Amino acid sequence: MAENIFGGFKEYSVAEFFKKNRQMLGFSGKIRSLTTIVHEYMTNSLDACGEAGIHPEIEVWVEELEKNDRYKVKVRDNGPGIPEKILGKALGMMLAGTKFHRYVQQRGQQGIGAAGCTMYSLITTGQPVSVVSKHQGKKISCKLGIDFKGNKPVLTEVVREECPLEEHGLEVEGVFADTKYEKSAYGVGEYLKRTAIVNPHARIVFNSPEGDKFVYPKSIEDLPEKAEEVKPHPLGIGANDLLDIAKASKEYTKLSAMLQNEFTRISLNKVKELRELVPEVNLDMKPSKLSWDDAEKLVVGFKKIKWIAPATDSVIPIGKEQIEKSLRNILNPEVIYVTNRPPKIYRGGIPFVVEVGIAYGGDINKEGKGGVVMRFANRAPLLFDAGGCAITQTVKNVEWKRYEIRKFDEDPIAILVNLASVHVPYTSAGKQSISGEDDVEEEIRNALMEAGRHVQKHLSGRRREKEKSTKKKAIMRYVGQISGDMAELAGNKAEKEEIKVGLQKMIEERFE
Amino acid sequence: MAENIFGGFKEYSVAEFFKKNRQMLGFSGKIRSLTTIVHEYMTNSLDACGEAGIHPEIEVWVEELEKNDRYKVKVRDNGPGIPEKILGKALGMMLAGTKFHRYVQQRGQQGIGAAGCTMYSLITTGQPVSVVSKHQGKKISCKLGIDFKGNKPVLTEVVREECPLEEHGLEVEGVFADTKYEKSAYGVGEYLKRTAIVNPHARIVFNSPEGDKFVYPKSIEDLPEKAEEVKPHPLGIGANDLLDIAKASKEYTKLSAMLQNEFTRISLNKVKELRELVPEVNLDMKPSKLSWDDAEKLVVGFKKIKWIAPATDSVIPIGKEQIEKSLRNILNPEVIYVTNRPPKIYRGGIPFVVEVGIAYGGDINKEGKGGVVMRFANRAPLLFDAGGCAITQTVKNVEWKRYEIRKFDEDPIAILVNLASVHVPYTSAGKQSISGEDDVEEEIRNALMEAGRHVQKHLSGRRREKEKSTKKKAIMRYVGQISGDMAELAGNKAEKEEIKVGLQKMIEERFE
Repeated sequence: MAENIFGGFKEYSVAEFFKKNRQMLGFSGKIRSLTTIVHEYMTNSLDACGEAGIHPEIEVWVEELEKNDRYKVKVRDNGPGIPEKILGKALGMMLAGTKFHRYVQQRGQQGIGAAGCTMYSLITTGQPVSVVSKHQGKKISCKLGIDFKGNKPVLTEVVREECPLEEHGLEVEGVFADTKYEKSAYGVGEYLKRTAIVNPHARIVFNSPEGDKFVYPKSIEDLPEKAEEVKPHPLGIGANDLLDIAKASKEYTKLSAMLQNEFTRISLNKVKELRELVPEVNLDMKPSKLSWDDAEKLVVGFKKIKWIAPATDSVIPIGKEQIEKSLRNILNPEVIYVTNRPPKIYRGGIPFVVEVGIAYGGDINKEGKGGVVMRFANRAPLLFDAGGCAITQTVKNVEWKRYEIRKFDEDPIAILVNLASVHVPYTSAGKQSISGEDDVEEEIRNALMEAGRHVQKHLSGRRREKEKSTKKKAIMRYVGQISGDMAELAGNKAEKEEIKVGLQKMIEERFE
Repeated sequence: MAENIFGGFKEYSVAEFFKKNRQMLGFSGKIRSLTTIVHEYMTNSLDACGEAGIHPEIEVWVEELEKNDRYKVKVRDNGPGIPEKILGKALGMMLAGTKFHRYVQQRGQQGIGAAGCTMYSLITTGQPVSVVSKHQGKKISCKLGIDFKGNKPVLTEVVREECPLEEHGLEVEGVFADTKYEKSAYGVGEYLKRTAIVNPHARIVFNSPEGDKFVYPKSIEDLPEKAEEVKPHPLGIGANDLLDIAKASKEYTKLSAMLQNEFTRISLNKVKELRELVPEVNLDMKPSKLSWDDAEKLVVGFKKIKWIAPATDSVIPIGKEQIEKSLRNILNPEVIYVTNRPPKIYRGGIPFVVEVGIAYGGDINKEGKGGVVMRFANRAPLLFDAGGCAITQTVKNVEWKRYEIRKFDEDPIAILVNLASVHVPYTSAGKQSISGEDDVEEEIRNALMEAGRHVQKHLSGRRREKEKSTKKKAIMRYVGQISGDMAELAGNKAEKEEIKVGLQKMIEERFE
């Protein structure tokens, strides 16, 4: 019996795993699958342009093919392109990429995205994707597929040519079934519109299956500041990560040198402080000799020291001014407020910053849809999995009544939340919803409340104005009567007009 | 520049991936992490006993250690145990297991679970887990860790002994930090209580950190029917899966033989029908020669044939009688209804069955908590990620007012939903929420509405009874007066009592 039970024990690859569990990558349902494909290519293009310091120009085509639920998707960018030896791995291999080990703010961070699209094409149509990459004067065209068992890329029909240096970029085209285009809150159109909102430095063009061409020209000349790769911060790092870093850094002879160089904000002075706080740990030992117990003691010591906050250049927010501009453009609201809060850190010394924009009144809710929440992570729109997202939860848990927003889902209010970080804690590989990290949730909540307070000031100011105005009107109604009565009492009806004017003037002055 | 961008291109292992993204395995937040650990070990124990035909006896210890947020967790079962050559892979390697390739209903299905716990112990305390396995007279004790880079198990301090054949089972013990025990809806206690509810054939004992011992004795003698491993069904299978099966089945010389043997419900007659419907595809070809286009044509042909539904023995529900018994025990409600619906299939010919139990009134809501929804997948409780779960969504979208449940969240109503399937479409590797598959959502909805209708019958019957009773009381109030008046009119006051009794009798009869 045991033979039967354990005879079937197998190992299998990551590619096979995600092939069977594609909904974990965002391929669940036809509409969402199509949006996911566009999302993966867009984020790669924007990231590549950002790395290379290029103003992104990205064009997307979605074309419906004759068979049901089958679409051709093409995305072309003007980024640096991909060199041949990397091409296969970048688009045809799960868990391979530049982003995993790096501690820097980027849209993609897992090395699954584009390979997931290749996978989806293969499992729904049997076809590999077509790729044209122009990189440093070399142009590669090929078909690109995946060997699932070995989690390896398969390149066929490879053509190598020369091309001018000024021509550079990547073009990916694939045919996907089990997809559907829809003009809805979850469709490609809405996704690209929101992407354009938070990436004003990019020019984005979308050619829809219905023949429409949507052009989002770039609206600012400056590129966003480039996020610097950053060292971890001592606050919040766990013993395990500390041990990993110690074991990986072979170039240091002393632990103290490793700490100063591999972490941010650890200076010679802080090392001195650490020696006094944690005398049992020899800071002159070889880093590779660090034991788990020692690592734990150091982590406790870190918590007792007063540190400077992590560097701000590691996380680049969209920016208060830009969010205001965007919200004003698309929503034309009565009130806008955007936060401008400093970065914080969560688990493992990971820096993050939260931006919240609140818009109220004006053209919002003209169609009766109140309480809109637009979620972003590192400037990438999150359209799905709202229910399981920490951003959505945190917005729900705010007592909006306190801020004079009586019915959040019906009032004319729109909220934009962007979480920028070197490592966004997604709940799943589909990357559409944020996991509940205490520090992050607390900061989102504080940002929301800050914005709420400002809206409330305006709303209660408005309310007071309204009450004042109502009072004034009420009082004015009696001025005529009172003037007449006073004139009569005074024995001179002719003075009625004079008294009336005098009273009105007094009332106006009183109500200023 | 390109050198800089692409110089950092690395490949990394699945273990490294989930180490960095542990929240995807359910380790997000301290309370949830502890519950996840117990969940993974419990599901493995229940599955192993199920495979071996053993009545499960499982004991769980959770003990708080001196340091903050650090607990020792031990789980011991009386299952078959694990042989030495499999032990490391089962508990120390991601994506290895017996369940991935098999098409059978089980709690675990990804081969990540227990290795994820080993991982969590290592990254939060640096310690491997301790394992004692008694299997077919051989007892192995060891410490078990993971080499993350190579995704390989690391066994140390191995002791091999003999033991009596009647002693069998697995005991795993680990020390975990970043965990927290809480008596709440999300804690270990609630998890084990719900597990006991849907596994009445098991004896479960929980020793809490506060020193309490919770014993859930087995309440039925029969073991649940064993779910048979099943072949896929032709309806709903895609071209990709068909191609995979064709290429993997080397023992057939003809495609027709492969179809009849590798699928359920494909008989010789159906093959004949297929030949007529899809003449362009030669059903006598070697299976390995099947092309994508041919596979697509076959899939289209499948859809035109009338098939018998998939076999019922591939999915074992908990059972109407058992759910009623459990709900009555714990909730003592006024009304209970449990569905008993046949299985259906979704994507890829995957059989599933939905069971819904509704309980209303009685002791429910005594503490003011209405609208409880208990979710289960293959008898494993789903406590987390309710917001993103298709079950929760579907329950929310039912118009409960139609069924006389005016305010779902406040009325004294509790709903149990169990989804049993050979492959449960989870949204993430954390396995706490169901992905939105059309066929599954529709069936859940239908089951909920069926149960709703029954509750409504009872509630409106109850309402009518109440109205009748109110009417009757109202009328009875006047009997005395009328009797007196009638007696007087008749000229004989003495008859008042007689008339009164006669009237009352008439009214009672009328209101039966």
